[in-house]
Formats: sequence, C-alpha cells, structure tokens
Amino acid sequence: MTVIGTNVPRIDGVEKVSGQGLYAGDLRLPGMAYAKVLRSPLPHARVGRIDVSKAAALPGVVAVVSRDNLNVASNAFGAYVRDQQVLATDKVRYVGDMVAAVAAVDEARAEEALQLIDVEYEELPAVYTIDEALRENAPLVHENLAGRKDPHYGRGGAHIVHDRSNICFHFRHQRGAVDQGFRASDFVFEDTFSFPSAQHYPMEPHVCVAQFDGEVLQVWSATQSPFPVRQELARVFDLPFSAVRITVPYVGGGYGAKSGIKTEGIAACLSRIAGRPVRLAFNAEEAFKTICQPRAKMAIKTGVKKDGTFVARQCQVYLNGGAYANSGPSVTEKAGYRAHGPYRIPHVLTDSYSVYTNTVPAGAFRGFGGPQVAFAYETHIDMIAQRLDMDGYEIRMKNLLERGESFAEGDTPIDCDLKAGLKRIAEAVGWQSKEQNNGPAGSKRKGIGIATAVKDGGGTNKPANAVVKIFNDGSALLSTGSVEIGQGMRTAFLQVVAEELAMPPERVRVAALDTHYTPFDKGTNASSATSIMGQAVQKAAQDARGQFLAAAAAVLHASISDIRLDNGMVVCGEQKLSFAEVMQRHFRDTEGEIWGRGFFKFPRDDNVPLGCPSPFWEIGLGAAEVEVDCETGQVKILRYVSLTDAGKMIHPLQCHAQDEGAAVFGLGQALFEDLIYQGGQLVNGSLVDYRLPRFDDLPESFTTFIMEGGGGPGPYGAKGMGEGGILAVAPAVANAVHNAIGTRIQAVPLIPEVVWKEIIKIKSV
Amino acid sequence: MTVIGTNVPRIDGVEKVSGQGLYAGDLRLPGMAYAKVLRSPLPHARVGRIDVSKAAALPGVVAVVSRDNLNVASNAFGAYVRDQQVLATDKVRYVGDMVAAVAAVDEARAEEALQLIDVEYEELPAVYTIDEALRENAPLVHENLAGRKDPHYGRGGAHIVHDRSNICFHFRHQRGAVDQGFRASDFVFEDTFSFPSAQHYPMEPHVCVAQFDGEVLQVWSATQSPFPVRQELARVFDLPFSAVRITVPYVGGGYGAKSGIKTEGIAACLSRIAGRPVRLAFNAEEAFKTICQPRAKMAIKTGVKKDGTFVARQCQVYLNGGAYANSGPSVTEKAGYRAHGPYRIPHVLTDSYSVYTNTVPAGAFRGFGGPQVAFAYETHIDMIAQRLDMDGYEIRMKNLLERGESFAEGDTPIDCDLKAGLKRIAEAVGWQSKEQNNGPAGSKRKGIGIATAVKDGGGTNKPANAVVKIFNDGSALLSTGSVEIGQGMRTAFLQVVAEELAMPPERVRVAALDTHYTPFDKGTNASSATSIMGQAVQKAAQDARGQFLAAAAAVLHASISDIRLDNGMVVCGEQKLSFAEVMQRHFRDTEGEIWGRGFFKFPRDDNVPLGCPSPFWEIGLGAAEVEVDCETGQVKILRYVSLTDAGKMIHPLQCHAQDEGAAVFGLGQALFEDLIYQGGQLVNGSLVDYRLPRFDDLPESFTTFIMEGGGGPGPYGAKGMGEGGILAVAPAVANAVHNAIGTRIQAVPLIPEVVWKEIIKIKSV
Repeated sequence: MTVIGTNVPRIDGVEKVSGQGLYAGDLRLPGMAYAKVLRSPLPHARVGRIDVSKAAALPGVVAVVSRDNLNVASNAFGAYVRDQQVLATDKVRYVGDMVAAVAAVDEARAEEALQLIDVEYEELPAVYTIDEALRENAPLVHENLAGRKDPHYGRGGAHIVHDRSNICFHFRHQRGAVDQGFRASDFVFEDTFSFPSAQHYPMEPHVCVAQFDGEVLQVWSATQSPFPVRQELARVFDLPFSAVRITVPYVGGGYGAKSGIKTEGIAACLSRIAGRPVRLAFNAEEAFKTICQPRAKMAIKTGVKKDGTFVARQCQVYLNGGAYANSGPSVTEKAGYRAHGPYRIPHVLTDSYSVYTNTVPAGAFRGFGGPQVAFAYETHIDMIAQRLDMDGYEIRMKNLLERGESFAEGDTPIDCDLKAGLKRIAEAVGWQSKEQNNGPAGSKRKGIGIATAVKDGGGTNKPANAVVKIFNDGSALLSTGSVEIGQGMRTAFLQVVAEELAMPPERVRVAALDTHYTPFDKGTNASSATSIMGQAVQKAAQDARGQFLAAAAAVLHASISDIRLDNGMVVCGEQKLSFAEVMQRHFRDTEGEIWGRGFFKFPRDDNVPLGCPSPFWEIGLGAAEVEVDCETGQVKILRYVSLTDAGKMIHPLQCHAQDEGAAVFGLGQALFEDLIYQGGQLVNGSLVDYRLPRFDDLPESFTTFIMEGGGGPGPYGAKGMGEGGILAVAPAVANAVHNAIGTRIQAVPLIPEVVWKEIIKIKSV
Repeated sequence: MTVIGTNVPRIDGVEKVSGQGLYAGDLRLPGMAYAKVLRSPLPHARVGRIDVSKAAALPGVVAVVSRDNLNVASNAFGAYVRDQQVLATDKVRYVGDMVAAVAAVDEARAEEALQLIDVEYEELPAVYTIDEALRENAPLVHENLAGRKDPHYGRGGAHIVHDRSNICFHFRHQRGAVDQGFRASDFVFEDTFSFPSAQHYPMEPHVCVAQFDGEVLQVWSATQSPFPVRQELARVFDLPFSAVRITVPYVGGGYGAKSGIKTEGIAACLSRIAGRPVRLAFNAEEAFKTICQPRAKMAIKTGVKKDGTFVARQCQVYLNGGAYANSGPSVTEKAGYRAHGPYRIPHVLTDSYSVYTNTVPAGAFRGFGGPQVAFAYETHIDMIAQRLDMDGYEIRMKNLLERGESFAEGDTPIDCDLKAGLKRIAEAVGWQSKEQNNGPAGSKRKGIGIATAVKDGGGTNKPANAVVKIFNDGSALLSTGSVEIGQGMRTAFLQVVAEELAMPPERVRVAALDTHYTPFDKGTNASSATSIMGQAVQKAAQDARGQFLAAAAAVLHASISDIRLDNGMVVCGEQKLSFAEVMQRHFRDTEGEIWGRGFFKFPRDDNVPLGCPSPFWEIGLGAAEVEVDCETGQVKILRYVSLTDAGKMIHPLQCHAQDEGAAVFGLGQALFEDLIYQGGQLVNGSLVDYRLPRFDDLPESFTTFIMEGGGGPGPYGAKGMGEGGILAVAPAVANAVHNAIGTRIQAVPLIPEVVWKEIIKIKSV
C-alpha cells in the first residue's frame, strides 16, 4: 500500500489554518436577520401568558416567535423520546429552557427586544439530583409523555418504562444468574462511585442560518447529524424531505453535542415570519445550557474467588438526564451494557437508568456513557485487589478478556489483545518500580495507576453510503454523509480512495455535505466514520475502479486482467495512458463521469439475542503517574501513557492526535470539570468559570501507543479509535492518587479541595 | 397526463418575488474582499510597464494582480479559440480590455487603487468595422494565434482558417451548384443588409465570488456554463476537476452572455494572493464592455423563376466578432448554416465569416446568429415579391418547406407545419385587408408585415445527464446541470418528474447546481433544457420509477405489472400504500434512497455529411402592424402576433412568457438597440444611454400562438422554443414599415432619425 498508513497532508489543513474554512456562523445572506433566544430563569414552572407586543414593536425587530405563533405541524421532537419542544408550551423544565425568540437587524437589537418580552411563570417544585428525582412523590419533570412508551430503537437487553415517575428510561442487561454467582464467590465487594457532568465545550457553539419561505427550508448548520435533523424538521414543519436541505459547512467540534436539532427549528420559524434568512448563534454560555454529559451515580458489586477470579457482578447505573431525553436513553443503554467491563465474568446483572431532573439536558458525549462506568469498574477492581492483597496489574491480567472471547452473549468477540496492551503501558509507566504512599507526609507524593476499558464501537445497525466519482479529467471526488467535525475523517477517506484507485492523493477531493446531494447517513458518532463509512467509501472506490477498468479495457482493446493502475497511470503491457486519456477516449465527445457507489452495514444477525452485534471494540488503556501536593491537594499528572487499537492506522498522525485529544478530555474530567448547580442555577456555565485542561496541565511525558491488531470491520482492518483514549484516564489518575496518598476517592473530578480534605482525614487519624 | 400541460406554480416563484432567492452577488463570506478591474482606455495598444506599487501600498488593498504576478499555468482561454487572456499580456485589443485588478476591503477602496496603477501603452492603429478589418494590410488584432488553427469542434460544412488576416473563422455551406442555379433562373436579385450589435442586458451583470487557497478553487458564479467554466479554470490553474468547484446560485438572466469564464479567473488570482475570498462584480457599464451580439453585414443573391419559385441562393454573412473569438466561430457557423432560410432551394452556397476588430468581443446571444440572417432573408423575400409583383404571403407559401422536407442534406427534416403557422399569423394580423402606403403623406401611416424563420435548435452533439432521487419519505429530488437562468426550466423538469412518478408536484424539488454534485452538462444554451435535458430527466425519473416499483412489488409480494402509481399512492388491487410506506418498508432500519439516472444524447449519425443532425427546428413566425409618424420617423408597433411550435407545452404559461420575452428582444433590435462607437469608444454603453424596449413600447395587441406539433425530441414531443420568437420581429416590422411608407430600409434598428430620412427622400422625390 502506498497511501494508507502515510501522513498525507490534511485535506482541510490550509483552508483552516489560513482562516478561509467556511463555518455555518460565517455565512452572511442578503437581508439576514440575527436571532436571540429568551430562556427560562426558573428551573421548573408553568408558563402563563407570553406578551411579545413590546418586543415586536421595537424598531429593527423583524420577527418574534413563541408557542403562540409557532405554526408548526408538531412542536414535539427528540431522537428517542419526543419530549422536547421547539419553544416551551405549557412548562419550562430547567434554567435555560427556551421560551421565545426574536430576530432583528443585529444581535444587540434582538437582545434588547428579549428584555421587552413579558412571560408569566407559576413556579413549581423542582428536582435536581438523581436522589431527589427518585424520591417517592417527587415532582414530575414530565407528567405525561406518550412518546416515552415507545422509544423507537432497542438493541439488546431490555428497556423498561416506568410510568408516572422521573425515570425516563431503564435498561437491563444480564447473563448467568448473578445471585448464584455471588453465592459461589469467596468474597463479595460492593462500592459506589460518582462521575461529573461535563460540557462538550466545542470551540464553535451551536449555530445555524435558516431560510424558510414556507415551501422550502434551507439550513446551514453546524450539526453532526444532518439527515436526522432533516427528518425532524420535515416532521415539525410537515415538509417533504426534498423541500428540506441541510448544508453542513466545517464544524468546529462536536463531541456529541451537535446531534439532533438545536437552533434549527427556532431559526426556521423566525425566518418564515420575517420573510428573510435568520442566523441563530448560541454563545458559549448558551451552549452550557443546551446539552451536557450525564452525571452518573454507580454501584458495583463483585463476587470473586480467593485468587482474584471474577465470578459475578451486579451494576447499578443512574444517569442524570436533565430535563429532556435527547440521546439519553441510548447513552443509558450503552453505559449499562458496558458497565461490567472487559472481564471474564460468568454472571452479570446490570440495571441502568436515565432520570429526568430540572437541569440542563444530558445526552451524547464523547465516550457515550463509557467514561462513567469505566471510572467505576476500574477503581473498583483496584479496591478489590487491595482487599485481596493482590497487584492491580495481576488481577486485571487474570480476568481480562482474550482476543476472541465474548464480552456479551451473541456480540462480536473481543477483537484485539488487551493483555498485550496492558503489559505495554505498565512497562511504559514503570508499574513494577512503583512504591506505595511514597515520600513523607506533608511533602509532594508520587503515585502510579493503571486502567483498562472498552466500549462497543461503530454504532448499532448503522448503514453507510458513499459515492466516488471519476471526472472526465481522471480526478476523483468522494461524497459521504460523515461530517468533518475536526477529526480528520475526510483525509482518511481520501487515502482510501487514492489507494483503491492507485491515484495520487492530491487528485482526490471530498465533497461538502448537503442532504440534497450526499447519500443518506444517520450521523457522525460512535467512532464510526473510518470504520463503518470507510467501508462504504472503499466499496464505492472499488465500484468506480471496476467501471474505470472496464472503460480502459475497451479503450485499449485489452482484457481487464491485463491492466494495472499505477500512480495515476493505466498500464497495459507497453502501453501507458493517464486516467484523463482513458476517460476522454471512453466518453469521447459526450464527456462524462464514472459514478461508483458503496454501501456497508455491519451484518445483522437475527439469530443472536442482541440482533445487532457491535462492529468492533474500541479500547482505552491508560497509565498515569501523578504527584499530589499534600499541602494544597493539587494533583499534577507527571506522565500519562495511553494505548488504543486502531486495527490499522490509515493516517498515523491523526490517529495519535485523536488519542491524545481523547485523553485530554479524560484528564479534564479526572481533575477539573463539573457542572455545578445551586438551587437549579448552573453557577459555572461560562468560559471564565468552567475549568478546562490548559496546555500547562498536560503531562510532561505524554505517550500514545496505538496497536494495529487488524481486527476492525473498516478498510484494511481499521477500527474507530477516537473515543477510547478518554475511558481510562479518570480511573488511572484516581488509582495513581490512591497509590500516592493511600486514600481512596470514589468520585471525580479530583479537585484540590476534595483531595486535600482526604489528606486531612488521614493526617487526623 | 395530470401534470404535463398544466401551469403548476413556479418552483422558484415565492423565493424570487419575496427577495429571498440567493444570487452569486448576494454572497458574503468571512473576510471577503471586493475586486475592481482596470480596463484599457485605448482600442489597440502594446502594453509596456505596469506599475502597481502605489496601488498595492494603499491601505485597505489586499491584492493587486496583473500579467506580472498572475501565476497561472496558462493565461490563454476561449471556448473555440484560446485567444483571450485572464489579464492582458502584451497587447490590449479594445477599450475595456482587462489589464489589472485590485482586491480591497470595499469596492470604493478598490476603485481608488485602480487610479494608482500606472500602465505604459504604445498605441497601435485599430480596426473597428468589418470593412476596415478586411482591408488589405489592415492592422491585425491578433498577429499570431496558434489556437485558431485547430478550433476543437466542427459540425458540418467546412471551416477555413485565414492566416495573417483578421478573419477569425470562415464557414462554408453548400448544396447543389449555385452558379448553375442562377443560370437556370428567370431572375437573379441581390440585396445587402445590416443588423446591429446589441447588448444582452441581463438584470444581473457578471459576478462571482472565488475562494482559492492554491489547492482548491471554489467559485460561486452567475454562469450559464458551470462545467465548461470548471474545465477552463482547471486548465488555467492546473488543478484537477475535483479541486475546482463551481456553485451556481440563481442567475439573473443570461441570454448567452454568461457562457465561459468572465470574472472567475481574475477573482481566483486575487483570492490566492489575498488569502481570502474575493467578490468580483461587474457593473452594468462593464457588462457592456464584456460581451455583445455580433454586428452583421449580409448579402443575399437569389435566383427565381417567374412564378416566384426559388432556384438558387448565395449568401455572404460577415459578423463583427470584436477583439476575441468567444463563441463567435460557433455563431458564425450557425448564422451561415441558417442563412438561406426555411425555403425549398435546390442550390445554396453560403460563406460566413467571423471578423476580429478592436471592439467589444461578440459571442452567443439569444438567437445565436439567427436574428441577423432572418432579417436579411425575410426582408429580401419581400423585395423579391415586390419585384415580381407577387404577394409576400403567397411567395412564402410557395417556397416554404413542408413538414418532413429537408433543410439541409442529412439534417433532421422540418418537424412542424410552417405553412399552417404562416396562415394563422397572416389571418390574425389581417394580412388580406392591408393597404399599400395607406394614409396621406405627412400624417401617421399604418402598415403590416410578416416574416417566417427557423433555426436549428437544441445544440449540437449535446449530452444530457440527470439524477432523480426518491428519499426515504417518498419525496423526490431532481439534479441536472441545466442552469435556471429565469427561463423556468426547473418548474418544467419538476413536472416531468411528477408526471413520471405519479407524484404531486409539491413533493418534487430540484437541487441547486454544483459541479461537485450535479451530473455533467455542457451548458445551458441553444434552447436545449426542456428538449434535450428534459429527456435525461424523464429517463432518470423512469429509472427511479422502475426501482421504486420493484421495491413496491417486493414489499407487497406482488408483481410489478399489478402495481399502479396514482397521485403519490401505490395501488395494488385493494392495497394502497403511500410512497413513504413503501420506501420505509423496503429499506427498513437502514433507511435509504433510490437513485435513478438518465442519459440522453440526440443520436449521432456518422453516415450523413453533417455528422450530428439538429435535434429539432425552432421556429419563429411574426406579423406586425405598425404606425409610422411621418413627421418624426417614429415607428410604433400597434399589433404583434408571434407564433412558434413547442412540440408539446409542458407549462403553457411559461411557454407563452418565453415567446413574449423573445419577441420583446426582437422588438428592441428592430427599433432601438445598437452599440455605437466613436473612435473605438463605445459611447452608449450605459443604463442611461442604451435604449431598450420599455413597457410602453409594447404593442397594444400582443399575441403569442404556440403550436403543439409533437415533433420534438423532448419529453412528450416537446421542443425548445425560447429563441424562436426573436427571429421574425425585425423583418416583420421592417416589412410593415415598408408597407406603411413605401420605402425599403435594409438595416435595423429603425430609429426615428433613419426612418425620417427615408421619408424625406420620398417626399423630395
């Protein structure tokens, strides 16, 4: 292979670093108005009269919209449960819930108009935490939710609906008989853990420009899921798909935040009223009030033999889903499915719940429930080892699934060598030489921790389509529905096409995404681009190649088997033609294009209980060395080793960058990030108050190892690997902190205050 | 048929009348700079030193470009002869030739910077008229034109290249032996005619926005020929087609002006230098200096029998092509090919020349050489009738080609009933009751004139591709490379798709044009959209229909023959499903789209001399009643009857609007329009000075008859008909003026000054 495995220049590199890349927020259409949204100041309230008359009368205001003039066929939307409204109708359910919107000649005028809207609220009692929400007779966030009864998906396990409660969704997963397993165990240990709610924090908040004349709705949107957005908008406005066009310019980061409709519905309503295009751009503080990672509360109970062999595990996972379901049910299912970890455990029972509260809605977030449960099971395993007086490395090696072993009945077997990975990171971090509670109290102490985690990757039952065109000059263009959200997918796809067509990479380009033109796709998520869409891309390129070879054979009066493609040339014995010459001779004066099509879907297997096996296993192994300042409680990561498996690296540089990026996400959640509420008000939801990892927080020694186990469903054995790196960070760091200071903290983030309090406890003992 | 032949609402109607339709000039990209072009003040000069240093130093200027820093692989372009430069290199060849360009933060700053560019010119002797250009030892507009020797096309007749002359192109067409024909005639009459150079005058002048980072060139352009523009830009900048993306928003009129590159090359150069997108919008005065209709000088010599039967005709057509060939060679060929008119003439010899002069380049213009020669042969026939003391109607009826007769050897036979058309317009205008030289001298006089003309329509050897998608909700989207330039083509195509898919028209939409996505096309011209592309559209819809029926059959467990599509429903016996239900059941959880493809090319016939027969005959018959004010010479058209043949009207309202629009073009050329030069300076090239028809110039009685002869190659027998209406206006009006005042004017426009001088001559006799 000549292109695969090389670091070709990023296709969007020059455009982006020179500032020329076009983002949705960059668009300026003639007559375009600017929108702002009025949000609920209360966490839970019935909405009375909405008086927009003063706002509408403000000069410069071109449209005001509320539930009273929405004019939609359906005001309910949601990927899994249709519990959300374009604008609030009867109730607001969290501080930030959207009530009304204004479009004006500029943002300042729109902002001014918002102040003139009078909304009558009747405040209701609210619930913020999982405990509050599940208390008997707790106020209900949603009283009546027809849609909840039929979540239109359902992979594996079982989903159970609880009427008249704040439980949005309940997933159960089991194998064996867990009670029997506990009885057969020598010891049973149970621990509880909690994990914070984080913000996705993409550089670019939610933004769109909508143009809607009542007949045709065109939206330029920063979305990860343009086709589902089309579907929702078509339903909301009762339009045919052909009359809804979603164009996706470059997207400034997604991480799960940009799935489903966010700004699009409101902008469309305003545009129709105003008779002009409307731009709705949330600012960073509004992004904090739009979507977040679900906060988790977890309990794990494990039965083990004396030698550390796992026998049974029961998990309870509660995710705080906030006010609206969003992708929460799916996250809940995935968190539950993954909660027992990559270990050989005969008996498993997991219950996973998504719980409605009067806080910011939670949904898809890089890792998709994986980081929460990995923190729980990888801290828990260290605690078990400690209780059995075993080494954390040894107990993992004893129980880890081998390549080919089953994670869950009927699912794809583990597709890489976890033990080899664990060995490698343990060596790299110096596991063997670590000391317990090193250094004298009061000074800085060092510690080492490791963690091993997996998540099922590639999404469930995800179809992928691609088109590869060869133009009349012999150059090629790829079109797929995967969104370039910064992950570098277009460059990887370009390499696949160039490889299959034996064409110099610079002759291959990737088309922009437009639902009118791009073949159908379900959204860019679950590390599916390279691995799942990549297959469709490869097949489309092969289809184009086949047609091109047939054309070349006809042109050269040769048989296809005698023709070889080599670096943009068609070689047949002594004859050598450029691709352009073949195309031109083939199509002659009509000119023409070859269109190759590719479709891929990871094979469904109706004979297994899960129905849709996981396309691959995305792995994340991490080893951290930390230094804890016992005076201040500050944790500094000195060394971090991340390891994942790419199956086959299409573009090694990008693979390493993905893994580094994922690890930095994990680092933030391990040490800093958490959305803090007081009385339902989010108090740190701003660029100033929300603490993210900075460059000086990065470990001095930061290594990413990437295995190429070849076990992926993607082209040349590739697997998705952009989320794995996040999984192991929090437990590896927490385990290292325990190693350093000798006390166990079962919650992240490990902010100095928390760590310092634990140190004080030890000192005071 | 339920949709074809009805006046469905225009698909772009609401968008355009509400001002929301997006045109290229509406686009605002982040950091976009505005360009202006420095043009030659001299008609012919050698370009010496170009000093841009002062301009480049002006604050706010972000790029200055001239031949010295163009940085192109090829600075020569042209559809037929590569005689034009992105910016002038060694010579300027007309007043307005482009020498340098500036991009700045706004247009005013760019304009200011232009004044600071110093260009040294060494003036050369110039030629402006055909006579001057053909004089012996005339100054050569192009001294050395390698490209001219190999015009890369050539349908029929012969093209002859004259080296070291100002003849750009020479086309000869003959049948029989014209000398022998003249000898066999009873009379031989010869007359000369001239026809003005007009401006296309689209509402929207040439405009584009280009973004070029050196690797990928994206252009939003108001062009009629996006794929040829892509090809030219790829060649100029040495880029693969896949790295050149042309997007065509709505276009505010074309009429031939918007073929080939105009603003795109300069904007791309400036964008690359500035590192940001650049908008180059010509103003109306610059449009006058960009492209025009070729001025014509014609001689026709006809041999007739005493009874008026035509025996032989020799034509000489000289077109003033201006400084660059543009589409001139093709116009020249077409003018020559059509010059003998739709008559049965055994012996024909035509020589047609395109001549370089130091005036604005001339090229494609609605009618494409047809109006010029139709004026000549339809005035000439009246003059012959007068000399033979025959009726103008009778002599036409005697010689007109019947349906099925041959216009030229090997070409498609005449495909409609010209005589029936002539009969109809003669009756409508009251031909039988007309008087000769009615009314007393000095007062207002009325007259009636008729004319009959044809042009070969649909273009030569034009391939057409279309894609029709059926989305998962059962709605449909069409994609074709035909440009909506206001002619209503998208609505007609929508009807074809709706008809073939038995779907309500509002479920069908037409995609925007983008060379990355839209299937290949050669440009929107020659009245080819409905007739040629329409066939590809129909085939694509039928392909989609076939796939959809197969899916429905599988879903319904029925055979395709038992299934009927009816108004968006799939009917099979008692069963009735919506399109959406069929799609959803067929694709199940993968969702999906049906892609239907269609290709059409009017069959080539290598056995006939012309190689590529004309797809159809576009006809234009006109009858005018005029009133001439003998005091002022002003001609007023009281009544105008236009007749054409649509084969089958897809959208009757649009057909009539097309024919009315074409007739108004003809009216302008008959009475007002002419580009006037003094010493090489165009003196009336502005919105104020150039006289166009106004609403109060329209005839009080204005009728368009449209025959449906069914003879077209398009869907349901449709033919193109947007140019026919222009052909007969000038001769019908001139013949009417002769009928009114008894004197013959062999040139248009019939401006009051010219007519008054003729009246004075009669009076003074």
